[in-house]
Amino acid sequence: IRSKLPDVGTTIFTSMSRLAEEHGAINLAQGFPEFDCTPELQGLLEKYMRMGRNQYAPMAGVMVLREAIAEKNLAAGNRDYHPETEITITSGATEALYAAVSTIVRPGDEVILFEPAYDSYAPAIVTNGGVPVYITLPPQYEYVDWQQVEAAITSRTKAIMINTPHNPTGKVWDRADLEQLGTLAEKHNLLVISDEVYEHIIFDGRRHVSASAIASLAERTFVCGSFGKTFHITGWKQGYCLAPAELTAEFRKIHQFIVFSVFTPVQFALAEYLKEPAHYQALSAFYERKRDLFYNAIELIGFVMKPSEGSFFQNVCYENLSDEDDVVLAQRLTSESGVASIPVSAFYKQPTHYRTLRFCFAKHDETLLKAAERLGKVR
Amino acid sequence: IRSKLPDVGTTIFTSMSRLAEEHGAINLAQGFPEFDCTPELQGLLEKYMRMGRNQYAPMAGVMVLREAIAEKNLAAGNRDYHPETEITITSGATEALYAAVSTIVRPGDEVILFEPAYDSYAPAIVTNGGVPVYITLPPQYEYVDWQQVEAAITSRTKAIMINTPHNPTGKVWDRADLEQLGTLAEKHNLLVISDEVYEHIIFDGRRHVSASAIASLAERTFVCGSFGKTFHITGWKQGYCLAPAELTAEFRKIHQFIVFSVFTPVQFALAEYLKEPAHYQALSAFYERKRDLFYNAIELIGFVMKPSEGSFFQNVCYENLSDEDDVVLAQRLTSESGVASIPVSAFYKQPTHYRTLRFCFAKHDETLLKAAERLGKVR
Ligand SMILES: CSCCC(=O)C(=O)O
Ligand SMILES: CSCCC(=O)C(=O)O
Repeated sequence: IRSKLPDVGTTIFTSMSRLAEEHGAINLAQGFPEFDCTPELQGLLEKYMRMGRNQYAPMAGVMVLREAIAEKNLAAGNRDYHPETEITITSGATEALYAAVSTIVRPGDEVILFEPAYDSYAPAIVTNGGVPVYITLPPQYEYVDWQQVEAAITSRTKAIMINTPHNPTGKVWDRADLEQLGTLAEKHNLLVISDEVYEHIIFDGRRHVSASAIASLAERTFVCGSFGKTFHITGWKQGYCLAPAELTAEFRKIHQFIVFSVFTPVQFALAEYLKEPAHYQALSAFYERKRDLFYNAIELIGFVMKPSEGSFFQNVCYENLSDEDDVVLAQRLTSESGVASIPVSAFYKQPTHYRTLRFCFAKHDETLLKAAERLGKVR
Repeated sequence: IRSKLPDVGTTIFTSMSRLAEEHGAINLAQGFPEFDCTPELQGLLEKYMRMGRNQYAPMAGVMVLREAIAEKNLAAGNRDYHPETEITITSGATEALYAAVSTIVRPGDEVILFEPAYDSYAPAIVTNGGVPVYITLPPQYEYVDWQQVEAAITSRTKAIMINTPHNPTGKVWDRADLEQLGTLAEKHNLLVISDEVYEHIIFDGRRHVSASAIASLAERTFVCGSFGKTFHITGWKQGYCLAPAELTAEFRKIHQFIVFSVFTPVQFALAEYLKEPAHYQALSAFYERKRDLFYNAIELIGFVMKPSEGSFFQNVCYENLSDEDDVVLAQRLTSESGVASIPVSAFYKQPTHYRTLRFCFAKHDETLLKAAERLGKVR
């Protein structure tokens, strides 16, 4: 059969995780926490499972969870989404993103992506016959050149995809950037897909500005969120999509045929768990300390970097240490030094000359210090 | 935005379930069991959750579950699938079907469906730009006219989708039909997608013949299965896709961007639970008794039907009782008599003149008897 995704191999996350396992390396590559979710959340899952909540959830998700998300989002000062018609529970943010793209992209449609870009965006567009149009940003996402973005818009442009806090750079978009985006989207009548899975991991007093907080964006945006990163349950596959009713109606048509519904007992568990905002409000401080720990430890080695502003990733530049290609270096560090990372070039369509690696610091302090020690020996 | 699925509203399952709830009706419409999964299976989920298996599973599924599926399938006399390269764990059979269709269907491609057809097949095809081509069978699926099927094949035909045991009719395909299909598929170089989610619910001494048991089919078929119906866990969303390595490689490229992976702790739990074949081998006898109970009770009312051969659905014809449209009757029975069913016309693209309703008998005996009593009053 003819491949729809001839350029796609196994994702970089899978292949680096495999390599890490083969070599018994510390896995700072694929983004997942080394810690478990709380016994309280586990207890809630058990409770609802034991209560027999084990058959199909409603296609759009159980209502109590949709209500809890609506409240949380409203409390953050964002658009007021109606649980009945504007919130859908998905199989992780991955499904939310795939369904949102599938809802709007037809053959020949263009979607603007900012590189470095998370690896699922382009394949979702291509599978639907669309064409990803790349705006290449500097490796730390230092700025967005909005004139360049506007110049890339054509009559075929359907949407722009953004991600804040940003994976892999840890960049947090500020209100001004989102407003620029809103102005542009309004002017050219574009839709927006906003990946906000790291919304609760944000540092140095910054605040997450959701696309749903910007009036010009909220009415044209699919906001894709997830509980995986927020509650250390990346394997529970619970995400959601917030979008105005008209967009949600079409989104759900696709969602219902992609997965129909999502693991039921966890939905009830999360609805109850979300009632206590402390469960997610403490997360930024928790990760900021880890970022600092890791940053300080590897700065000594000679890596050059801006501290991550959000997410659980730290990008580092190694150009003053080596001029190896980042894929080669990432593989060598895994096999020889026992520390796996992600070469940031994997987030670009065209090979780049950037000498940058991404490290996930969602790990125990000992793990991070041991990784830094191993990296120090390479120098 | 322009809808990709302008003809699709909320699925009939969702709308009948809602109507049933509104009227406090017995819900024999949407197919889900009234009973819970076993405490043993729940205990296994708890065990692996408490062990901390809560982060991303591998994209293709945890290996022990893929191995358990391979063994089970081989023990049934089917093709020997390699867990590493030919078995993928999906978010229910729904995702397996959607991903299989997305893997092979491009704009303009035709896929042959047999009506009555499960409601997710056509939208999956249409979303991918394909064209469903319908072969309309009699309401009880009495026979397949293979000449008619061959006549429907064009140069754009890519695949044929089948379902055995069949929803909504309860028809079980025999080896001869599958061999006919295999011959045709080979001759015209077509792929096959086989939905076998009711494989363990099969009556009167029949045996499930999987497409993977037929040599001419196995090398060109995506077999989509599920644990939802087998273990009373429709809300746990665990399915799988079996396909030869070349097809699986492409299938996984799509799967990894649709959901990436599936709820982790249940995968470990199912792998352990599957070690005891009694856990699924007793299911046919359990449901056969229920089919008999329900059949006998409603036969007295005057419904005309062939006993279901498999699945947990019984189709009944009411043409000697009423000449109401089946949608109207299904709604009236729900609101006035307190028994919800599915009008079988919902499984056809064109409105039909068939006077047939589908009842789900995966319910407690008391529920089935009470429903029959209520239906008896209508007469
Ligand atoms: C779905 S696996 C990838 C996890 C992740 O978000 C990342 O490592 O960037
Ligand atoms: C996914 S909801 C529909 C359940 C089902 O398989 C049916 O009722 O036919």
